[in-house]
Amino acid sequence: MRKVLIANRGEIARRIIRTCRAEGVATVAVYSDADSELPFVKEADEAVHIGPPPVPHSYLNVEAIIRAAKDTGADAIHPGYGLLSENEAFARRVQEEGIVFIGPAPEVIGQMGDKLTARRIMQQAGVPVVPGGEDSVETVDEAADVAASIGYPVMLKASAGGGGIGMQICRDEASLRQAYQSLRGRAKAYFGNDAMYVEKYVERPRHIEVQIAGDQHGTVLHLLERECSIQRRHQKVLEESPSPFLDPETREQLCQSAVLAAKAVSYTGVGTVEFIVDESKQFYFLEMNTRLQVEHPVTEEMTGLDLVSMQLSIARGERLGVKQEEIKAQRHAIELRVYAEDPVSFLPSPGTISLYQPPAMEHVRIDDGVQSGTQVTPFYDPMIAKVIVSGATRDEAVERGIAAMQNFQIAGIKTNIPFLLEVLSDGRFRQGQYTTWFIQERAAQSNN
Amino acid sequence: MRKVLIANRGEIARRIIRTCRAEGVATVAVYSDADSELPFVKEADEAVHIGPPPVPHSYLNVEAIIRAAKDTGADAIHPGYGLLSENEAFARRVQEEGIVFIGPAPEVIGQMGDKLTARRIMQQAGVPVVPGGEDSVETVDEAADVAASIGYPVMLKASAGGGGIGMQICRDEASLRQAYQSLRGRAKAYFGNDAMYVEKYVERPRHIEVQIAGDQHGTVLHLLERECSIQRRHQKVLEESPSPFLDPETREQLCQSAVLAAKAVSYTGVGTVEFIVDESKQFYFLEMNTRLQVEHPVTEEMTGLDLVSMQLSIARGERLGVKQEEIKAQRHAIELRVYAEDPVSFLPSPGTISLYQPPAMEHVRIDDGVQSGTQVTPFYDPMIAKVIVSGATRDEAVERGIAAMQNFQIAGIKTNIPFLLEVLSDGRFRQGQYTTWFIQERAAQSNN
Repeated sequence: MRKVLIANRGEIARRIIRTCRAEGVATVAVYSDADSELPFVKEADEAVHIGPPPVPHSYLNVEAIIRAAKDTGADAIHPGYGLLSENEAFARRVQEEGIVFIGPAPEVIGQMGDKLTARRIMQQAGVPVVPGGEDSVETVDEAADVAASIGYPVMLKASAGGGGIGMQICRDEASLRQAYQSLRGRAKAYFGNDAMYVEKYVERPRHIEVQIAGDQHGTVLHLLERECSIQRRHQKVLEESPSPFLDPETREQLCQSAVLAAKAVSYTGVGTVEFIVDESKQFYFLEMNTRLQVEHPVTEEMTGLDLVSMQLSIARGERLGVKQEEIKAQRHAIELRVYAEDPVSFLPSPGTISLYQPPAMEHVRIDDGVQSGTQVTPFYDPMIAKVIVSGATRDEAVERGIAAMQNFQIAGIKTNIPFLLEVLSDGRFRQGQYTTWFIQERAAQSNN
Repeated sequence: MRKVLIANRGEIARRIIRTCRAEGVATVAVYSDADSELPFVKEADEAVHIGPPPVPHSYLNVEAIIRAAKDTGADAIHPGYGLLSENEAFARRVQEEGIVFIGPAPEVIGQMGDKLTARRIMQQAGVPVVPGGEDSVETVDEAADVAASIGYPVMLKASAGGGGIGMQICRDEASLRQAYQSLRGRAKAYFGNDAMYVEKYVERPRHIEVQIAGDQHGTVLHLLERECSIQRRHQKVLEESPSPFLDPETREQLCQSAVLAAKAVSYTGVGTVEFIVDESKQFYFLEMNTRLQVEHPVTEEMTGLDLVSMQLSIARGERLGVKQEEIKAQRHAIELRVYAEDPVSFLPSPGTISLYQPPAMEHVRIDDGVQSGTQVTPFYDPMIAKVIVSGATRDEAVERGIAAMQNFQIAGIKTNIPFLLEVLSDGRFRQGQYTTWFIQERAAQSNN
C-alpha cells in the first residue's frame, strides 16, 4: 500500500493523513467547493476537487471518487466514517476497480446495514438481542401474546415511526390494548403504513459499545468498551472508557459477545459492536458499525494503540500485531464533541470562526478540522472538534476535561462548550451514574 | 378610531384585520420584502412596504412604521405580539406622534419588562412570588443562609446563565456548598460574570396564565386561565383552557391574584399574568405580558369573547362591556401550534409549502398566515398556523384535535403535526396529568 485516497473530509481526513504520514504512505484528499480552504486539503500529499457541496455531488459521488483514485494512482481508499463508509455498493465497486477498500468485506457491510438481518445473525450466533420486534403483529391479541411472552414493559411501535413519534410504552396488557388501536390509526393516517411491532422496553438504558479488530487470518480481538450514554436525541456528545457502570465480570461477558458477533460474520478490519445495557446489567446487541467510529480516539488514548494503523495493517493482509492479553486500560479517556451550535437551544450556529485556539495541554488531544477563518457551512455535520482528555483516574480525566473546555478559545460562532462544562460538572455524571436519559432529564429539570 | 396600522405580520396581522373589518375600522399592513406575497398584505385595506427582511430593517424599524402610519392617516397602531409589542420606547413614540397605541401605558410596559421591578411591585401588592432570587449572594455562607430561609430544594443560578447552563439544583446544604465554588468558577470562566443567586426550586411545575383586561375607568376583569405547561425549551406548543389541574378554589385564588397584579399597575388593555404552580397547587407570579398573547384564541373559544374587539374598545376609552360574573367557560378549548420543523429533531424546516389545506371542520378554528406556494423563510418564527379546537368536554376537544391534525394537509416542508398527534394521544396528557417536564420526559423515555 503506497498511496491512500481518503473519501471523507474534515477532522477524520486529517486523522487518517497523520497515521499514513507516520507510516510513509502517501495520501490523496478529495474535496468539495465548500471545503477548499480546510486544513485537510492542504495537509494531504495531493488533493482532487470532486464537485459542489451538496454531498450527492461530491462526497457521495462514487464516479468522481473512483476517477480521482485512478488519476492519482491511489491503491487503496479509506472511507472514514459516515458518507460512503457503510455503503456496500461503493466498497464492491472499489474492489472491482482493483483498489483496496480499507474496511470489511462488502457483503458484511450489507448484512450489518440491514437491521433485521444483523439481528438474525447475532441471535443465531448466541449474542443476546432485544426480545421481540422480529415480526409485525396483525391484531391486538397477537400483540398481547408477544408482550406476554417477552414480559412488560414493552414498546409498541409503528414500523414507520421513530424518535418518540409512533411509539408507546405499555406497562401492562390493559394499556397495550388501549394503545394499540389508537397508535395503529395514527400510523395509518400519518405514515400511510400501519405495520406494528412489539419489543421489550429497556428502562433507563446505557449505550455501551465494544471496539473490535479482525485480521484476514481469522483472529478477532476486542479493544474493550466505550461508554456512549451521554446522547441528545441519538447524537453522542461525550464518550468515555472504561465505562464507570461495568463491573469486571460484565465487561468480560460484553467484550466476549462482541468478539462472538465479529466472528459470526468473519469480520476483517476494525469495527464496533453496540449494545444497550439495562439497570441489572443485562445487555443486548443493538447494531454493528463496520467502520472507524467518530469516538475511536477514546480507545486509542485508553489503550495506547493506533486504530488507523491497525486498519492499514489489516488491509495489507498482515496479522494483528498485538495479543488480547496485552490490551489493557492504561488510562481513563473522555472525548468531548465540540459542535457549532447554540448551547441552550441546540440549534446549529453556522458562520465564520474568527478566532480558533484549542487548548495546548498535556494529555489533551485535539482532533479537529477547522482553523481561524474557517467558515462553518450548513452543508455538513456541525462538529468542529473532538477534545480527548485522559488521566490516571476518571476524576483526573474529568478535571482535565473541564480545564480543556475553559481554555478552548473560539469566537465568531456559538458552540456547545458551556453545555459540555455543565455535563462535566454535573453531580450524577461525576459519580458515573448516568443513562441515555441523562440530557433530557437535566433539560426537564431546568425547564422552569 | 377609523384606521389601524398593524405593526406585525403573518397570522396575527390577519387576526387583527378580521376584527377591525367586522367593526368597520380600516386597516394598514406593513411588510418586508420577504412577506410581500403573504395573505395579510393583500387582506389589509392598504399595505406599505417598510424594508428588507432582517427585522431591524423592517418590523423593528420604528421610523419606517411611524412614517407609514402618518402617510396613510392611521389614527392607531396595533403592535400584535413579539416585535415591538412590549417596547416601551416605541409605545411612547407612537403616543408622542398623536397616534393611539393599542396596549397599556408605556411606563407599565417598562415596569413589567424589567423582571426585578415587576417582582418587587407584585410582592408589594401581595401577589405571591418565587422566594429568593432578589439579591445576589457574595459568599457560600450567604448562599446557605438564603437557602435555609426559603427551604430546600433551591436552584443555585449564575446571573448570566439560562436554559440549564450555569444553574444547579441543590437539595441540601452539603450539595449547595459543593456546587457553589464550582458553579461560580464556571460562570466566571465562561460568562466573565460570577454573580450568583439562590431561589426556590419548584419541582414538576405547571405554567398557568390568567387573561386579564382593564379599561381606562379602573375596572379590571379576568377571563379565566390558560394551561400552558406543554413546552419545549420554554417554547409553548399546546395550550388549553380550563386547566385540567386547577380545582375551583385554586382557580379563583389564581384569577384574583392576576386581577390584583393588574390593578397594582393600573393596567389598561388586555394582558396576561403568568404563574408557576407547584404540585401542591401553590402558585407564584412569573411575569406579566403586556400585549395580546399568541394563545389568546383559547380564551376566545372558551368564553365566546373577542379579545381584539376588547382591545379596540379599551383603546377608544370605552367601559368594558361585560361583567365578571358573565365570564364563564362555555367550552373546553385547545390550541395546537403548527411549526415548520422536523417532528423528530425539532430543527427548523424552511422551504416552499407546495400544498396547504387546513381542515375545514366544525369547532375547528384556523389562525394562519400562509397558503399554498408560501415560502417559509428563516427570517421569522417558524409557526405557520394555530389550530384551535373546542368541545363541550375536554375529551371531545382532544378527539377533535386529533381529527384536525389528521386532516391537515401540508406538503413541501416538514411540520410538527406528527408530534402534536403524539401529545394528544399520550396517556398522561389524556388524563390531564402533565407538567412543564412533559415533553423532555417523553423524549428521555423514547431515547433508546
